[in-house]
Amino acid sequence: MTIPYILDMIGTVAFAVSGALVGVRKEMDFYGVTFLALVTAVGGGTTRDIMVGKIPPIIFADYNYLIVSVVVSFAVFFYHKHFESKMHLFLTMDALGLGVFTVTGVSVGLAYDVGWAGAVMLAVITGTFGGMFRDILSKEIPLVLQKEIYASAAMLGGIIYCLCHYAGINKSISFILVTSFVFSLRMISLRRKWGLPVVRIKQ
Amino acid sequence: MTIPYILDMIGTVAFAVSGALVGVRKEMDFYGVTFLALVTAVGGGTTRDIMVGKIPPIIFADYNYLIVSVVVSFAVFFYHKHFESKMHLFLTMDALGLGVFTVTGVSVGLAYDVGWAGAVMLAVITGTFGGMFRDILSKEIPLVLQKEIYASAAMLGGIIYCLCHYAGINKSISFILVTSFVFSLRMISLRRKWGLPVVRIKQ
Amino acid sequence: MTIPYILDMIGTVAFAVSGALVGVRKEMDFYGVTFLALVTAVGGGTTRDIMVGKIPPIIFADYNYLIVSVVVSFAVFFYHKHFESKMHLFLTMDALGLGVFTVTGVSVGLAYDVGWAGAVMLAVITGTFGGMFRDILSKEIPLVLQKEIYASAAMLGGIIYCLCHYAGINKSISFILVTSFVFSLRMISLRRKWGLPVVRIKQ
Repeated sequence: MTIPYILDMIGTVAFAVSGALVGVRKEMDFYGVTFLALVTAVGGGTTRDIMVGKIPPIIFADYNYLIVSVVVSFAVFFYHKHFESKMHLFLTMDALGLGVFTVTGVSVGLAYDVGWAGAVMLAVITGTFGGMFRDILSKEIPLVLQKEIYASAAMLGGIIYCLCHYAGINKSISFILVTSFVFSLRMISLRRKWGLPVVRIKQ
Repeated sequence: MTIPYILDMIGTVAFAVSGALVGVRKEMDFYGVTFLALVTAVGGGTTRDIMVGKIPPIIFADYNYLIVSVVVSFAVFFYHKHFESKMHLFLTMDALGLGVFTVTGVSVGLAYDVGWAGAVMLAVITGTFGGMFRDILSKEIPLVLQKEIYASAAMLGGIIYCLCHYAGINKSISFILVTSFVFSLRMISLRRKWGLPVVRIKQ
Repeated sequence: MTIPYILDMIGTVAFAVSGALVGVRKEMDFYGVTFLALVTAVGGGTTRDIMVGKIPPIIFADYNYLIVSVVVSFAVFFYHKHFESKMHLFLTMDALGLGVFTVTGVSVGLAYDVGWAGAVMLAVITGTFGGMFRDILSKEIPLVLQKEIYASAAMLGGIIYCLCHYAGINKSISFILVTSFVFSLRMISLRRKWGLPVVRIKQ
C-alpha cells in the first residue's frame, strides 16, 4: 500500500459518502444508496478507462473501490445524521480525493498516449464524472456545471502535471506538487466562496 | 433457437414494452417511443459489453433486439390502452426477462474474467441499466433506486450462479436454477410488496 | 482540409453553439457552458467510437473539436444575446452538421463491419446523442425524442448511404447526396413544422 493509494482510498471514501448522502436525502432504498455511493466513487475512473481502452475498467480491476463504497453506504444509511454534521471533514477529504484523482486521470492519459490536452480532459473526467452521474441519477443539474472551483482545479492540476512530465520531473514529486495544488486551490475557493463567472439572465 | 434465447426474447419484449409505454405517457413522438423501447431492451446488455471490451456490443451483434423493439413500439404506439390493461402479464414477462438477463450478465462476466464480484455487478448492470436509462431519458429518478426487490434479485441470482460455477455445476442446470430463483423472488416480492429499507427523512 | 472536414467543423460550431446557449440559459458557470458545448459537439461521435472500439475516440484523436468548442463557448458566454438573435443561421448550420454527422456515422459503421442496420444506428447516434446529453445535463427530456424530424432525417440518410455503398457508388457522390438530402429534409420540416406522430393522452 503506497501513499498515493492510501490517499486515493481517502478520496474514494469522501466521494462514496457524498453519493450515499444524496441517496438517503432522496429517500432511495438501500440498493439505491449503495449504487449512488459506488457510481460517485468510481464513475469517473471507469469512464476514463473505457475511453482509453483500459479493459477491464477500474471498477472490475480493483475490488477495494466496491468494498469501500458498500461499507460507506452501510455507515451512511444507519448514521446519516452523524455524517451530515461532519460535512467540513468530508469536504476536506473530497478536496484531497479531487487532487489524487486528478493525478491518476492525467497519468492514465499520458500512459495511453492521448496527448496533453486529452490527458487534462481525463483528469477532469476522473475527478468530476462520478459526481455528475450522482446528480443526473437524482434528477439534479450537475453541481459541477453550476458553481465553485472544482473541475477547473482538476484542469489546472492536469496542466501542471503535464508540464512536469514534459520537463522530465520525477513522478513522485509531480504527484505531491499537483495533489497539494488541487487540494489547496479547492479548499481556499471553498473558504473564500470563489467561483467562475456566470451570466445572470433571469430578472 | 435454444430455450434460453427464446426466454431472452420474451424478456426483451417485456423491457421494450415498458420503455415504449413510458414514451407514450410522456407524449414522445414515434421516434422517441421506439428509442425508449430499444434503450430499455438493450441498454443494459450494451453497457455490459462495452465495459468488458466485447466489441461489437449486442445491439450491433444481434439484430433481433432491434427488430423486436421496433415491432413492439409499433404495437404500443397504436394500441397503448390495450397494453396498459395487460400490466400483470408484462410484469410477469419482465420478471422472466430479469432472470434471463441476470444469467447472461454473470456468464459474460465469468467468460471475460472480471472475477466473481465483477460478474455479479454485470448481472445487475444487464438487468437494470436499460430501465435506468429509460427513466433518466424521461426525467425521472430511476425506479430501480427507489423501491422494490429488483436489482437485489439480480444480485442474489448472480451470486448463486457464481457459486454453481465454482462448484462445477452444469451450465444448463445453473441457468434453470438462477432464472427460476430470480423470477420467483421478483414475483413474490411484487405480490407481497416487499422492498428494501428506506430512511424516511421528510416530515 | 477537405470539403467534408470543413462542413464537419461548421456542424461542430452549430452544435457547440446550441450547447453553450443552453448552459447560459441555465445560468451555468463558464466551465459548465464550455462542458455543455463540448459534449453537444462531440458526445455523439465519441459514443459512436467507443461502441465500435475505435480507440482513442474522436474527442482525443482530433483536438480541433475541443478548440472549436472552447472558442465558441467564449463567444457565446460574452455575446449570448447576439447569438440568440441569429437562431435562424444556427439552425441552418445545425442542419448541415446533421447531414455531415450522418455520413461520418454511417461510414464508421460500414468500416467497422457492424452491418447496415448497425451503421444506420451509428448515423443516428453521431447526429443526435450530443444533443441528448446536453438535454439530460440540463434536466430536460431530450428534444430529439419529442418532436420534429431530426433523428429520422439521420436514419433515412443513413439508409440511403448504405444503398449507395452496396450499389458501389463513389464515396464522394454518396457524401454529397446524403448530406444534401438530410440538410434539405431537416430545413423543409423546420419551415413546414413537420413532425412525427404523437399519441395525445392528457386531456
